[in-house]
Amino acid sequence: MYIICTYDVKSKNCPKFMKLLRRYLFHVQESVFEGELTPAAYKKLTKELEKIITDDDHVAIYYSYNSKMIKKQEIGNSIDKTRFIID
Amino acid sequence: MYIICTYDVKSKNCPKFMKLLRRYLFHVQESVFEGELTPAAYKKLTKELEKIITDDDHVAIYYSYNSKMIKKQEIGNSIDKTRFIID
Repeated sequence: MYIICTYDVKSKNCPKFMKLLRRYLFHVQESVFEGELTPAAYKKLTKELEKIITDDDHVAIYYSYNSKMIKKQEIGNSIDKTRFIID
Repeated sequence: MYIICTYDVKSKNCPKFMKLLRRYLFHVQESVFEGELTPAAYKKLTKELEKIITDDDHVAIYYSYNSKMIKKQEIGNSIDKTRFIID
């Protein structure tokens, strides 16, 4: 499965989401992660997300069972990853 | 084509991106838009994005020619859209 995970969460909750998602996916934008996961790993990730999410948070996960079916185009400069250092 | 557009831009540039992307796609998270576009409309959108983008900005567009191949799972509360009123 190819996964694109985006989240819109309270800023105080950001570090928790970043730490969790980094264990499974690549951090490509401030609140966007992507990567290949097995269905089992995907299930585990969603369970962990459900544990940390609060009423103020929203996570959207787009996925395809066939990674070749999702294409990507980037415009502008891919961002400076050091900006995402979790203190 | 099914499109998921995410952006990571300087806050002063946000209104420009929001206004443009709203003309083509649905605003589903702070910096995430999605929806169905024809290839011609997609081309037009990317041209317009290239015009407004600066060196500090990054746009990632994920797309599939077969909208059935992209699934979506949401966790948490889908966000209050009024938060995205552009002043």
